Amino acid sequence: MELKNDLFLRAAKGELTERPPVWLMRQAGRILPQYRALRGKLSGFKELVETPHLAAEVTIQPVDELDVDAAIIFSDILVIPETMGLEYQMVEKKGPWFPKTIQSMDDVRKLKSGAEAAADLDYVFKALEITKKELNGRIPLIGFSGAPWTLLSYMIEGSGSKTFSKAKKFLYTQPEAAHLLLDKLSDTIIEYLKLKIQSGADLVQIFDSWAGILSPKQYEEFSLRYIRKICDAIDEAPITVFAKGAWFALPSMGSLDCNVIGLDWNTDPHHARNILGDEQVVQGNLDPCMLYSSHENIEAETKKMIRKFNGHHIVNLGHGVYPDTPLDGVKCFVNTVKSFSY
Amino acid sequence: MELKNDLFLRAAKGELTERPPVWLMRQAGRILPQYRALRGKLSGFKELVETPHLAAEVTIQPVDELDVDAAIIFSDILVIPETMGLEYQMVEKKGPWFPKTIQSMDDVRKLKSGAEAAADLDYVFKALEITKKELNGRIPLIGFSGAPWTLLSYMIEGSGSKTFSKAKKFLYTQPEAAHLLLDKLSDTIIEYLKLKIQSGADLVQIFDSWAGILSPKQYEEFSLRYIRKICDAIDEAPITVFAKGAWFALPSMGSLDCNVIGLDWNTDPHHARNILGDEQVVQGNLDPCMLYSSHENIEAETKKMIRKFNGHHIVNLGHGVYPDTPLDGVKCFVNTVKSFSY
Repeated sequence: MELKNDLFLRAAKGELTERPPVWLMRQAGRILPQYRALRGKLSGFKELVETPHLAAEVTIQPVDELDVDAAIIFSDILVIPETMGLEYQMVEKKGPWFPKTIQSMDDVRKLKSGAEAAADLDYVFKALEITKKELNGRIPLIGFSGAPWTLLSYMIEGSGSKTFSKAKKFLYTQPEAAHLLLDKLSDTIIEYLKLKIQSGADLVQIFDSWAGILSPKQYEEFSLRYIRKICDAIDEAPITVFAKGAWFALPSMGSLDCNVIGLDWNTDPHHARNILGDEQVVQGNLDPCMLYSSHENIEAETKKMIRKFNGHHIVNLGHGVYPDTPLDGVKCFVNTVKSFSY
Repeated sequence: MELKNDLFLRAAKGELTERPPVWLMRQAGRILPQYRALRGKLSGFKELVETPHLAAEVTIQPVDELDVDAAIIFSDILVIPETMGLEYQMVEKKGPWFPKTIQSMDDVRKLKSGAEAAADLDYVFKALEITKKELNGRIPLIGFSGAPWTLLSYMIEGSGSKTFSKAKKFLYTQPEAAHLLLDKLSDTIIEYLKLKIQSGADLVQIFDSWAGILSPKQYEEFSLRYIRKICDAIDEAPITVFAKGAWFALPSMGSLDCNVIGLDWNTDPHHARNILGDEQVVQGNLDPCMLYSSHENIEAETKKMIRKFNGHHIVNLGHGVYPDTPLDGVKCFVNTVKSFSY
């Protein structure tokens, strides 16, 4: 089906567009009253993730409410560890929790991976199909996955962490098991993203949320290497890589076979342009807390950012939108971008 | 009293030393069995902070056990908010918690500040005096303070946070109140550090633990400006500034009137030298998780780091040592530095 608004995809593929496209990481979520109303009726977060028509409904809510230029399928990065054999629970106000974690090479060997693991995530692919149909060509649909290193962190730690010292200890003390786990994760992610594209995703984004925890040398060895493998294996759709806190790896990221590089809010646009060049498509990076500010400020800072990136730019925040962000601040941000012209 | 081992101070002042001095952030703490034994007998963390002879005892434990080149007074950065009027509790396994937080300009106006607030921290100054006497000139003693922005964060949030979005919202929505609070904090910190130096501190270090939460522009306006004010006001002893995650501000930090710049483990030594030059004294920056590794690895990576910094360098980790770090890993790290020669 032909897209009515393909601005996001054209920009992702390197075309210079009349204005930058705009969407927000975590746009499908607690910022929307419709989401909170639906969520309140359910047993928990995972019911939403695992019920295709509900995930589709929540994916489309911000499209209707905010009129953004791309939808992102509502899901969770932790479906990958789960399908590989590590079940998790989402504990209200605490976050994810894995009853079993990975401790040894033996644990890693027991995990399913690749096509066998990915195929079990049928509820995600169904959600994409329903969403794609219901979007009816309005805007492109984004699929996503966590990066291998970020998923490994959760599988070792069993939950979030301030320092992720258990996960890093694993890299230092059991590097072979770590590499096998990262390989199995990469193989699963590749199959998963390919199936997502087959099910309707027009672009896929890889989130490396815990990139900033690693030293530059470790990041190269235990993360970027596997992101590279994934990027090299996927040519069915454009790819965005967003590695939060990996400022030190920006030069290497420029050499990835991906289309778009996501930037966090610590990264000044001029700095990114100096390293990545004027032609690299980038995505980001307004400070999510800026949306708490006055509309005057939001408008001024959003425009300033767009001018600094100066084209080849998909507007987004530098992190997922925070749940308590005022909806009218979000709308002001989106509308500022939509009325901008270079 | 003349120091028997003044290697740390000579390096901090810019002298090229025969080997780099070494100490560890959080060396006085849970890595030591002596600390855990003492701590187990007390009612809580704050009893240790507020009882001068106990704080002194804990400060000297790592000097005896590890034979490091500097001692750092055992204390807490949150004594400053407390003396300004915001009491806090240290909740076991959770961290600090403030029953009252700062919400408005009115709240800020009510806070004590400057000499009046600092003078009440007599228990810290007594701890320094006792430690200084008991060290008997063996090695220099470091005093410290949190940076104004990091302390403001706790005073607004009331605890730690993943995003510090409340603190950042305060900057965006109540910038005048934020600046008044940062001014009051700076005035208090200046007096506090001067009194610490009078009480025996040979060098003072400013910890900006939450630097990495801010955008480059905000960091300049709401943090660095006040760190600069503090550095400009203190000339009684050398100063170290450690701003975790503030990689984007490294060029500006080079212009601070401080002696030593602390670096986190994300910062490659060559990158730091490119920005700061060969003559800037730097402190850091081995990944704290490296100490979980084999002694062979610890030794090799420590030496590699020392060679990369190539002088004008105080060896430390890139963050406080984690509580579950094996003591023999810590000793291997310290001994590697002590047997190194350029």
